[in-house]
Amino acid sequence: MKIEIFDSTLRDGAQSEGISFSVSDKLNIVKTLDEFGVAYIEAGNPGSNPKDIEFFQEASKIKLKNAKLCAFGSTHRKNLAVDEDPNVLSLLEAGTDSVAIFGKAWDLHALKILNITLEENLKLVGNTIAFFKEHGKEVIFDAEHYFDGWKDNPQYSMEVLKVAAQAGADVLCLCDTNGGTSPTEVYKATKEAFDAFPSIRIGTHCHNDNGCAVASSMMAVEAGATHVQGTFTGIGERCGNADLSIVVPNLQLKQGYDCVPNDLSGLTEAVVKLSEISNMPLPNNKPYTGASAFAHKGGMHIDGVSKLSRSFEHIKPSAVGNTRRFLMSEVSGRTTVLAKLAALAPEYDKDSPETAKIVARLKQLEHEGYQFESADASFELMVLSTIGRFKPHFRLCMYRTSGEYPFPSGDKSASAMLSIEVGGKVETAAAMGNGPVNALDKALRKALSVFYPELDKIHLTDYKVRVLTAEQASAAKVRVLIESTDGSQSWTTVGVSTDIIAASWQALVDSIEYILNKKEEDAS
Amino acid sequence: MKIEIFDSTLRDGAQSEGISFSVSDKLNIVKTLDEFGVAYIEAGNPGSNPKDIEFFQEASKIKLKNAKLCAFGSTHRKNLAVDEDPNVLSLLEAGTDSVAIFGKAWDLHALKILNITLEENLKLVGNTIAFFKEHGKEVIFDAEHYFDGWKDNPQYSMEVLKVAAQAGADVLCLCDTNGGTSPTEVYKATKEAFDAFPSIRIGTHCHNDNGCAVASSMMAVEAGATHVQGTFTGIGERCGNADLSIVVPNLQLKQGYDCVPNDLSGLTEAVVKLSEISNMPLPNNKPYTGASAFAHKGGMHIDGVSKLSRSFEHIKPSAVGNTRRFLMSEVSGRTTVLAKLAALAPEYDKDSPETAKIVARLKQLEHEGYQFESADASFELMVLSTIGRFKPHFRLCMYRTSGEYPFPSGDKSASAMLSIEVGGKVETAAAMGNGPVNALDKALRKALSVFYPELDKIHLTDYKVRVLTAEQASAAKVRVLIESTDGSQSWTTVGVSTDIIAASWQALVDSIEYILNKKEEDAS
Repeated sequence: MKIEIFDSTLRDGAQSEGISFSVSDKLNIVKTLDEFGVAYIEAGNPGSNPKDIEFFQEASKIKLKNAKLCAFGSTHRKNLAVDEDPNVLSLLEAGTDSVAIFGKAWDLHALKILNITLEENLKLVGNTIAFFKEHGKEVIFDAEHYFDGWKDNPQYSMEVLKVAAQAGADVLCLCDTNGGTSPTEVYKATKEAFDAFPSIRIGTHCHNDNGCAVASSMMAVEAGATHVQGTFTGIGERCGNADLSIVVPNLQLKQGYDCVPNDLSGLTEAVVKLSEISNMPLPNNKPYTGASAFAHKGGMHIDGVSKLSRSFEHIKPSAVGNTRRFLMSEVSGRTTVLAKLAALAPEYDKDSPETAKIVARLKQLEHEGYQFESADASFELMVLSTIGRFKPHFRLCMYRTSGEYPFPSGDKSASAMLSIEVGGKVETAAAMGNGPVNALDKALRKALSVFYPELDKIHLTDYKVRVLTAEQASAAKVRVLIESTDGSQSWTTVGVSTDIIAASWQALVDSIEYILNKKEEDAS
Repeated sequence: MKIEIFDSTLRDGAQSEGISFSVSDKLNIVKTLDEFGVAYIEAGNPGSNPKDIEFFQEASKIKLKNAKLCAFGSTHRKNLAVDEDPNVLSLLEAGTDSVAIFGKAWDLHALKILNITLEENLKLVGNTIAFFKEHGKEVIFDAEHYFDGWKDNPQYSMEVLKVAAQAGADVLCLCDTNGGTSPTEVYKATKEAFDAFPSIRIGTHCHNDNGCAVASSMMAVEAGATHVQGTFTGIGERCGNADLSIVVPNLQLKQGYDCVPNDLSGLTEAVVKLSEISNMPLPNNKPYTGASAFAHKGGMHIDGVSKLSRSFEHIKPSAVGNTRRFLMSEVSGRTTVLAKLAALAPEYDKDSPETAKIVARLKQLEHEGYQFESADASFELMVLSTIGRFKPHFRLCMYRTSGEYPFPSGDKSASAMLSIEVGGKVETAAAMGNGPVNALDKALRKALSVFYPELDKIHLTDYKVRVLTAEQASAAKVRVLIESTDGSQSWTTVGVSTDIIAASWQALVDSIEYILNKKEEDAS
């Protein structure tokens, strides 16, 4: 069965804390959503601000493959005739084939917030929908607070739907505006509407204030809804809207509904792209598309999934364009190490004494505070050095960092000097920086460039610090994670010490040793 | 009706990517969960690694008010008798009153992963449970993959439950191990188990791979489950476990179940604390406890909620210890500042020029990366200095820190020297430390003790570092938070700089100025 997917990233999503879309952001979002195959893209109210007017002008030039643009606005104002309300008129001017009109479906809101009678509210709903139907628009009626109304005064909520239906609404979309309705209640209330209006499409619009927006959207579909509203990355007012990147695979991969014309192998890419445009971090643990969604850490899980994917995966990661990962951890045993070892030194198996040595070294290092699950490069170096296959490319003779106040030069608060030795030759270098680690990093690169000019292309892209034993305060252990890149690949290394400079140094050294070693191997 | 809340942060939560708990982290988590009122706290397998053994020893010394500790392990190994399996024996040695034992409830796993017959698997389950019952333990049987089994071979899954029940299991906990079961399926399969075992407690353990773990847990309760497993912040393998910080208020505030003995006004604080211990960012849009959970941005929503809270809020924010916020509005900035100002300088109101000055300074500092939400002491000093009521107790003339390799003395990798001036008198002091910040902290205390001997009692209890602009890597800005105590009270201060030493210095200075100022005020 066909389900219409209606995305509100540009409207409800824009109500998220921390979200502010430029016109070009909005156009990129439209293209990404259309490409992925959603049926409707709801944009803001064209009358609300100049950015939205510009957006509708630009958007009308894009040739969409799958989606219809939909302008959004409210029922007309109580003191104005429908054809004199500037908001209603600007909605018409947006020139979209579809409009989404919201009206109150909870008696409390009519009486206490709009301060009008229940009868007047029905007229606002009926007039506005009829007006847009007369102008040839497809009208999606968002019955705001339908579920709260259904709990407080169900006759009235049903009356609002009836008026909307009589006025010609094409979709009756039931909104859980406050996001507090349980999935079971959503099912019941949706079923009642579905039974009452068998010839009109029923829609669902859930908010996530009770953490159930995805489930409630699915329950609404079970109750007969064929139009599902949400946002593709789940952003939206307060706790967000139903996350379509989860609803769609739940319905399409598991229950056989047709939500989008394509298969879902582009899902992860689309979500990553939308998160980047929105500048919102994509949580690792996001269902289907997160980096950890198919990451296995427990030894038994890794063992199981290696034997049979569905033993610990609810779907194949490739079905949504994601990939499986095995993580390192103290609780994972030899299986994890073996899975990683397969790429590095395939001659060792579960029973090799080298495997036992690596597992023991790993446990010891993790006990000291190292963490390798995201520091693949350091893990690789540890394995190679444990089995005697790693030869360092340089040796530190000494370093000295100095932090000073007053700052010795501008924002340069620190300096570092070091000596390294390569093949019997000692090189000494010094640099200033805006912190001791920055100064040390610069000095190291300066000294190494004499021997390894190819390191020029490498730079750090991420630097994380985590205090491990907070109770010891300024004497606590810290763990530093460093991500580096040479432009085409990136890798992460780790260091641990009570001294943040020493911990950063370890991670810096690993970063450089890793890429020098890799380049040698690639060359041989 | 009473619902048992079973938290698995220390076990399933530890399987999350990026999570690595120290023993002291684990003990802090136990205290926080017990304080909040959960019934069971599941810890790891005491036999799996040295950190867990140390944890169980330390944990047994804590006097718990609400919770029982529960050790976790699997059914015995197929090649060993139950009383010879070292994992089973170590579980017994953990000395907890309750144990959680997981066994396979999906024929596929017995046949393809364990490589045993269906009959043999039943024996593993029965033997292991019977063994722990003979030793007087409460046994929670985690029927692993119950729902996948129910879909593939329901007779066999039911057979596993039957054997567990006959062996004396106290709880039959139905696990959606792969997290792919829909809420409706969870309801049906749980109902079947509930109907088959009316005299045994039925539990639910959902994973979030389909984004429905919270809803499925609620559906399980609707079907008769009275034991709910999850993790308090939702962390766990892959996409996480059912988030108890959402399940509990859904059940207790909205459906009248008794989940925890206290009211839920401590919920937000508990979640913030657990997130901090886990060093996992707390998403703004997290239901109930996120910073945006009751944040209103749309003009109509702000208007509505100002008239009547329930018009746009599904519960009162205070019911879960959270607060309402209005975003992007000068008014809201002032309201927050005023609420804080009321205690410090009650003579200023909304329209005072001083209030405007403080709001402007606050915005500037937040733009630079300061964060005062958890640094009340620094906020107070900022307010007092902005309104001209703060006189510093000392002035820094200069400091010089030095980090060295090879370490100059034992684990002392750094030294610091500084001069401060108090009332025209300059004091110079120096110290070594196991990092530059530690050395600087010691030197500062040495110098200050000449003037303020009362500072002897003060020490740091927490030290946090967050990198703010990761892209600039080792040149990135860092924010340091320091918590201090004088034995009876504690306070937190903040510093921001690209140089971790300079940022730490700011927070150290604020920490000392705050308490000196407070002692003067208390004395006057």
